[in-house]
Formats: sequence, C-alpha cells, structure tokens
Amino acid sequence: MKKMNMVIAQSGGPSMVINESLVGAVLEAKKSARIGKILGARHGILGILGGDYIDLRKVTEKKLLKIAETPSSALGSCRKKPTADDCKAIFEAFRKLDVGYFFYIGGNDSADAARIVAEEAEQADYPLVVYHIPKTIDNDLRSCDHTPGFGSAARFVASAIKGDDLDNRALGGVKIDIIMGRDAGFLTASSALARVREDDGPHLIYLPEVPFSEEKFVKDVKAAMKKFGRCVCAVSEGIRGKDGVPIGAKLGSGETDSHGNVQMSGTGALGDALAKVLKEKAEVKRVRADTFGYLQRSFPGVASKVDQAEAMAAGRAAVKAALAGELKKGTIAIVREEGRKYRVAFAPVPIRNAAKYTRSVPKEYIARNGHDVTAAFLEYARPIVGPLPECETF
Amino acid sequence: MKKMNMVIAQSGGPSMVINESLVGAVLEAKKSARIGKILGARHGILGILGGDYIDLRKVTEKKLLKIAETPSSALGSCRKKPTADDCKAIFEAFRKLDVGYFFYIGGNDSADAARIVAEEAEQADYPLVVYHIPKTIDNDLRSCDHTPGFGSAARFVASAIKGDDLDNRALGGVKIDIIMGRDAGFLTASSALARVREDDGPHLIYLPEVPFSEEKFVKDVKAAMKKFGRCVCAVSEGIRGKDGVPIGAKLGSGETDSHGNVQMSGTGALGDALAKVLKEKAEVKRVRADTFGYLQRSFPGVASKVDQAEAMAAGRAAVKAALAGELKKGTIAIVREEGRKYRVAFAPVPIRNAAKYTRSVPKEYIARNGHDVTAAFLEYARPIVGPLPECETF
Repeated sequence: MKKMNMVIAQSGGPSMVINESLVGAVLEAKKSARIGKILGARHGILGILGGDYIDLRKVTEKKLLKIAETPSSALGSCRKKPTADDCKAIFEAFRKLDVGYFFYIGGNDSADAARIVAEEAEQADYPLVVYHIPKTIDNDLRSCDHTPGFGSAARFVASAIKGDDLDNRALGGVKIDIIMGRDAGFLTASSALARVREDDGPHLIYLPEVPFSEEKFVKDVKAAMKKFGRCVCAVSEGIRGKDGVPIGAKLGSGETDSHGNVQMSGTGALGDALAKVLKEKAEVKRVRADTFGYLQRSFPGVASKVDQAEAMAAGRAAVKAALAGELKKGTIAIVREEGRKYRVAFAPVPIRNAAKYTRSVPKEYIARNGHDVTAAFLEYARPIVGPLPECETF
Repeated sequence: MKKMNMVIAQSGGPSMVINESLVGAVLEAKKSARIGKILGARHGILGILGGDYIDLRKVTEKKLLKIAETPSSALGSCRKKPTADDCKAIFEAFRKLDVGYFFYIGGNDSADAARIVAEEAEQADYPLVVYHIPKTIDNDLRSCDHTPGFGSAARFVASAIKGDDLDNRALGGVKIDIIMGRDAGFLTASSALARVREDDGPHLIYLPEVPFSEEKFVKDVKAAMKKFGRCVCAVSEGIRGKDGVPIGAKLGSGETDSHGNVQMSGTGALGDALAKVLKEKAEVKRVRADTFGYLQRSFPGVASKVDQAEAMAAGRAAVKAALAGELKKGTIAIVREEGRKYRVAFAPVPIRNAAKYTRSVPKEYIARNGHDVTAAFLEYARPIVGPLPECETF
C-alpha cells in the first residue's frame, strides 16, 4: 500500500484535553509505516487554505506529551464552515502535498465541516480518508456516551461551585453562577457533583432543556432562602423561555459565527439580568452573579484524569480506524460498556452521527421539579469527572 | 495568672487561606495553659451579639487541619462596623463568658472593627486583649509586606490568565479579564506572572492606581493587535477615571455595605462596557469579556503553599503575641527579611497600622507606559504565589 501523508487540525472552542487527542493521533500515526508526513494545520481549515503547517514529526515526544497536558488548541482553532470553493482549494492543496488522511478534532460543527470536506472529496474523486475526533465541553454529540473535554470542564464547574457554595455559606444571600452550554445542560447539571452534605449548593439548577420561567425562578429562590437561609443557583447560559429563544442571546450582542451560532459566552449580561430580577421580585438584599466564562474550558491544572486518558485514546482510535480503511468518512464513538465497573470502548461510526445536530440532557437525568438533576445523572457523570478537591466544614 | 477564655471570628470577604489562620490560632491556643475555652463566633461580631458559638476545643485536630485547607470562612463572615451600642453588648456577653482574648481575622475594615472593639473596651474598663489577624486577597494592608490570601488568589488569577491566553491564541481577537481589587491593583498585577514567552499575555494590564482613559485603552489595544494579532487585557475591577470614581461602581447597582464600600464584584457590567467600547472604537470583531468574580477567592485546590503556611503562622503569631501581653491591641505584621532567600517574620504591631486605610501598588511596581508592571513587581510577587501549572505550545 502506498505511503500517504496526513493532515490534522483543531476546530471550534478549545478544551482542556483537545491537545490530548491531537497528540494521541500523532503518536499513533508515528507507529504506522503507511503514513508519511504528519502535518498540523494551524487554525483548522484556515491553515490548510493558507498553507500554514507544523511538521509534527519534528516535535519531540517529550514536548508532545507536555502539549497534551496543556489546555486550549495548540494548533490554533477556527469556526469556519467550508464552502464548495473552499473544498476545491483544499483538495488542490492536498494533491500537491500527497495528503490521503485528514483528521479534524472538534464538536458537532467541526464534524459537519469534516463531513462536507469528505463528501466533496468523494464528488471530486479525490481519494481522502476523513476522520472527525470528538471534542466538546458541552457533551452534546449524538455519537458519544460523553465527549472528551466534558469531564474536565465539568470538574472545573463542580470545583468552582463547591468553593462558591462555601463562599455563599460565609456571607449569605443569593449567588447565581452562569455556566457554559449553548444547547445542552450537561455542564450545568454537573454542578450537582459539588454536593456532599444535605444543605450544600447548588440549591437550584436550570438547564436549557427545561423552559425557563421568571415566575418559577423567583418562587424557587424564595423557597430555597426559606429552607437554607441562602441560595446558590447554577444556571446554563442557554436557558430559554417557552418561545425557545435563549434569554442570554436576546441580551447579548447578536454576533453570530458562520455556523449561525449566536454569541453567548464572554459576557456577563445574563447573570446581571437574573440578579436584577431577584433583587426586584424575590426581596433578597444580597444577590451576586458570576459568569464562569472561558475559564471552564481553559483553566490549567484541573483536568479530569479519565477525560485526559480518553481524549488521547480517541485520537489514537481515529488513526487506527483510518488505517483499517473499512470506513472512509468516520468519527469515533465513545461507548460506555455495561457492568458495574466504568469502562468505555472507542468505535468508528459514520461521520454523520456526530455532525450538525446536538444531543440534549435526557429526561431521566432531569428532576421532576424542573430545577435539579436525578441520581441517575450523578451516576452517569461521576466517573467521567473524577474526584473533586475535598472540603471540610464545622 | 488567671485562665481566661478566648473568642475568635472571621470577617469580610473569604479567602482560600483564612481558615489556615483560624486553625493556626486554635492550635496555638490549645498549647497554652492560660487559655480556657476556645470559642469560634459564627459570622463575625454578629455571632458574638447573637451568642452563636462553636466550641473549637471539641473539634478534632484531624478535622481542624482539613478545615485549614478548605477555602472560605468556615465560621461564617459578616461586613459589620460595630457601633458603641454593639460594643456594650459585646462586653456584656464577654463578661458572662469570661472572655479575655478576642481575635478577629480579616482585612482593613475588619481591623478597624477590631480597633473599635479594643478602644471601646478600654473606655469601658473591660480587660480585653484584642488581636487582628491579617487577611485580604487585595493585599492592601499597610502593616504587611503582603497579606495572607493574596498569594492564593494571585495564583488563581495567574493560572486563569495563563489558560485564557492560550484560549485567545487559538481563536484570536481581544479578551478582557476583570480581576478583583477594590482599591489596590496587586491581584491584577499578578496576572503578569502568567507570562513565559515574549508574546504571552496579558498584553495590557490596567490597575486602579493609574487613571484609566478610554482613549488610551483603545489606542493600547490597537497597538497590541498590530503587534501580536490578538490581545489579552487584565483589568482591575477598581479602575477609575481622572475623577477618582471607580468606573465599575458607576455601572453597578450602587449597593453599599456598612463600611461604605460600593459593590463591584458579582456583576459583569464593567467587562461588558469595556468590550462595547472596543467593538465600537477599536474595530475589533471578536471581543470577549470575563469577570473572574468570586472564584478568585474561593476555588478549591489551587492555593499557594507559601500562602497557606504563612496564613497559619500569622494565626499562631497572634495568639503568641496576645499571651506575651506586651501589646494589648495588636495586629500581626508580615515582614520580608532582607537577603537573597525569601523569608518572612511575623511581628506584633499596633492595630491602627492595619485599620481602615489601604495600601496601593507602589510606583516602582508600575511600568512607565501605564499598562504593565515592572520586573521589581514580579520579583516581589513570585515567591508568594509559587509555581504555576506548566503549559507547552508549539
């Protein structure tokens, strides 16, 4: 079989473990005699279009392993949906470089970008094996039990809520914490992992999957204040009213990316608006709001060990599947194996399974009262997130 | 000498190491035959006024040491300036409980509260040894080279900026990070510790000590964008214009505590306002703003080891000084010893040295351009903050 070169790139929002997947793929590729050059394109398909590559064979294994543990996308990222013209330019570039394998690490939009490239390559008769490697802190890929990046972001969120709940214990009042998750509430739900004692926060959890009502919110907070004398609320940035429009998007700048996503992170508007509601209607004097923002996906030193290992394994699995050659346009599904002990398998599946459409928090993970999660969710999330820092109180 | 009971309490904003000071004082008190009961008042002087105490002799050493490592104020906190009537009620309560020693852990407002109690006790002829134990993430006590709590909050800030700079590297544009520090910019200045390579952020640092001008800000960002193709800004929540009024306070709710401090944390308003300025005037398309908020003082698992040890030592030093009896109304000064190796001493000094008035970042720590810190600041801060998580890039 002819030796072919490979291109790998990162796309979409960074995570704490997306470099693990990159390095896993590179290390696996290095083991194969059928892969020639290993080229890292900078800033996703923008680097391919601009011919901006790093020769990843030249990077020492020691350096690669350090990069694996570093948050954010070491190759740089982009949020670009390739057009038909972009694809033509990509194949022209690939032809010159003898590229036969293309790996794209990212979320559902990046999977869709990879799908477009793969389908256009087929149309253009360009022989290209395309693999998407899953990554998203939102945990909303339909193809995976959970996605690399989620466990570490969830560990940040649960740790932050744990500390913030202690802070709220000290000074009282209501604390609102806005947590990432455009369409899916998995990350916000993970705040519940912070609880150890019965009166630990978060006392209220609002997911985008449950229509948000200001009246219910005010009522819930009043009830929590009565019960606990204080209240910590974990609120998804994606909460939406009955009209289905995210409340944060209405308050924000209205800025959109090329996949049509409205900006929600990188602003404190939603938290401030909810704090205002409580001050006016719930008669609470001390209300504070924090938006956890980009720290959730980029804070160094708090990654989940399980998440790190799985992200690297997903990268390796993509290269193995691409070399196996049975499926030419694939993504790696992460499948949880049955049994009492937590174990996962990495299986190649058609790329369409990950592309475009997202997965929501299933009903069995949402408490009936609409402002909490179930024990089933905690059981689902705990092994992925791993142990949290221990805290002690009187 | 007659055995007397002691009361200890925590006040003001929590920190990651305020419990180290509490536990240090308790462990030291346990060693003395002259101290009877060791009572922890819940929520500062509110607990004394309400008779809400924990018998700290009954808490096991194992549990105490775990509490020491836990962020936030385990006894609960308050922001209350005692009135003359409060003091009368305090002495009445203390008389019934045979209290001869009072320890109050907190910042400058808490030192002032302790000073008021001490002076009123003298007026009322109530024999009371009062010691303030320094704590503030703002690092603005005039009595200390640096304050317990600062090193750990600074470690959170520098780590967050390190990860956020990598995030900004991946997707570009301008990132604004709002950092705590009502009157002093030490915490914001510490963001500079994140830098390793020449093009690492933060690229611009704005402290409350330098009058903030919107025009200069826009100009600085444009220049940084030209030089680095991206820009990370570390901005103090306390920045103020030439009129001396904090910009964030003008945008906020106007809520004040009993010491007259206007609310600045717990809102994203300042970051959002600055992002709007840049979008409109610096012609940058992608501008994001995060407000680090309460996570800076409460996040578990990221404390500085030096800060933890010093906070405990400060608690011990206060009890030792109170028992020594030379100074009846004191606070503990942290003094950096001369010499190449970092070493500090803990010295009892009059309580007035810490009370009320704050310390600013000295001129020699601020770069001439008005948007950076000097090498002298880095040298000052590095040993207190300790090593940061290592990150690697291509």
